Amino acid sequence: MEQPICLVGIGKIAVDQHVPAIAASGDWTLAATVSRAGTVEGVPSYSDFDAMLAERQDIHTISLCLPPVPRYDYAARAIAAGRHVMLEKPPGATLAEVQDLQTMAAARGVSLYTTWHSRMAKGVAAAKVFLSDKVVTGGHIDWKEDVRRWHPDQDWIFEPGGMGVFDPGINALSILTNVLPAPVHIKSAELQFPANKFTPIAASVQFSGDLTMELDWLNEGRQMWEMTLRAGGDVVALLDGGNRCVINDVEVAGTTLDEYPALYHHMATLVREGRSDVDLAPMVHVSDAMTLGKRINVAPFSF
Amino acid sequence: MEQPICLVGIGKIAVDQHVPAIAASGDWTLAATVSRAGTVEGVPSYSDFDAMLAERQDIHTISLCLPPVPRYDYAARAIAAGRHVMLEKPPGATLAEVQDLQTMAAARGVSLYTTWHSRMAKGVAAAKVFLSDKVVTGGHIDWKEDVRRWHPDQDWIFEPGGMGVFDPGINALSILTNVLPAPVHIKSAELQFPANKFTPIAASVQFSGDLTMELDWLNEGRQMWEMTLRAGGDVVALLDGGNRCVINDVEVAGTTLDEYPALYHHMATLVREGRSDVDLAPMVHVSDAMTLGKRINVAPFSF
Repeated sequence: MEQPICLVGIGKIAVDQHVPAIAASGDWTLAATVSRAGTVEGVPSYSDFDAMLAERQDIHTISLCLPPVPRYDYAARAIAAGRHVMLEKPPGATLAEVQDLQTMAAARGVSLYTTWHSRMAKGVAAAKVFLSDKVVTGGHIDWKEDVRRWHPDQDWIFEPGGMGVFDPGINALSILTNVLPAPVHIKSAELQFPANKFTPIAASVQFSGDLTMELDWLNEGRQMWEMTLRAGGDVVALLDGGNRCVINDVEVAGTTLDEYPALYHHMATLVREGRSDVDLAPMVHVSDAMTLGKRINVAPFSF
Repeated sequence: MEQPICLVGIGKIAVDQHVPAIAASGDWTLAATVSRAGTVEGVPSYSDFDAMLAERQDIHTISLCLPPVPRYDYAARAIAAGRHVMLEKPPGATLAEVQDLQTMAAARGVSLYTTWHSRMAKGVAAAKVFLSDKVVTGGHIDWKEDVRRWHPDQDWIFEPGGMGVFDPGINALSILTNVLPAPVHIKSAELQFPANKFTPIAASVQFSGDLTMELDWLNEGRQMWEMTLRAGGDVVALLDGGNRCVINDVEVAGTTLDEYPALYHHMATLVREGRSDVDLAPMVHVSDAMTLGKRINVAPFSF
């Protein structure tokens, strides 16, 4: 039976991904939205989150796709009101606030899910299975896209806490931390900050274990979201944001569901089983890069 | 019976604190040192860490007081060689590397201790006990010192990973995270970076729960390491870096041991009981501040 769910923050990612995923789901019905501006045709909309929580006792699950900075307050209020909560990535503006939400959800007996949509890309599971009994000996990540094309006028990504190029880069890190059989850590990083912005627009990161990562938000050529991992003589390539997996030059079969439908399916399982799924590993690497990274000033940026 | 211990990194903090604490301890004997330059009178010294590990099988415990960036490699080698490890604060340059050391120590069956010396300051325990059944309603931290006086020519603190003013500031955070009965998280921060340096020289931090923190490394006046925490009508003041506790204007009795002797005493307990003590909460707040903080450029700095 389909359960009612409320979607908060009707912006680009909600319209592009969350609304169609919920519409196609056999687990969920979109029963309400909360947003300052956006609405979804035929769905009751609220601008006051507390009013929705009070009025709609039929809705037990809330999906938050606001930007990371305001997300904590909404999540804390939803948990306090006894609702299950699903968080877009990154799950917050700070690590401490997500650890706090985790403690609150456990105490209140509700499910908390820090989603990482790229982990649900269709090639990821095959890469993880193949590498599970290997020793990874090196690799490289290229996550190079055109910010003007994928994040048009999203000024918040350049404000403090917006993470800049690590907003897409954390997708690569969510895949990496999922498929690696043993953890790595950042040894050094160079971060390029536009002179007029508070977050980096490009980054070059060196991990332990001969693993490197290049993030670039000014790539107007071929859009690249790919990584190659070596394990001795074996080579695993994840292409198209993890949606294709090529092992030793042979393309392998992927999982069935698209990324967001798979997230909503997993959330239904968590709620049914009374569990949470909170993994901060991708965000720890971003925080480590921002703490350890060497800042380099580059040309001002405008959309 | 005193156990042999090896001290690695014979710089200012080793000479000022670690060597006298070990000398006065009934738990430990300083059996070797490893350093590029410094030595301790009458104690066998090594410049090659691996040679010490190979030759001195009588030494089961290693205390690392190198700067944070090189510390991981030494700790990993010590754990791999089956030694217990004690880490000066901050326990590493990244959160991920300390989580990795924690996993390695557990797998190898040795004790790992991420020390926070300010938590052993004499007034901290009394503040923690008093606040344990209260709700903290606000507070303020002032950690304002003269970097030229306390860190003369320590260039590494201004290099990437050196943490800058958060190197002393993490001491305040180690106390805060120890005495608060419920966690807080950073909501916003302003970080002042000298134009010629990679780490901040001053910071203004706002936490949840009406708690604020001011860090300043250019204070040539009265040196301040103090915090005030309010719990309704009650006021707890920790002064002199946590060494004095004043509750509702009444000075309360403190613990007996000085900070570093207390750390070495706790390490002896951990080794005897086969336990580790790894708490990253203070470092999580620093990483959050560095990730979320708004950067402000200020005048160049030189010692």
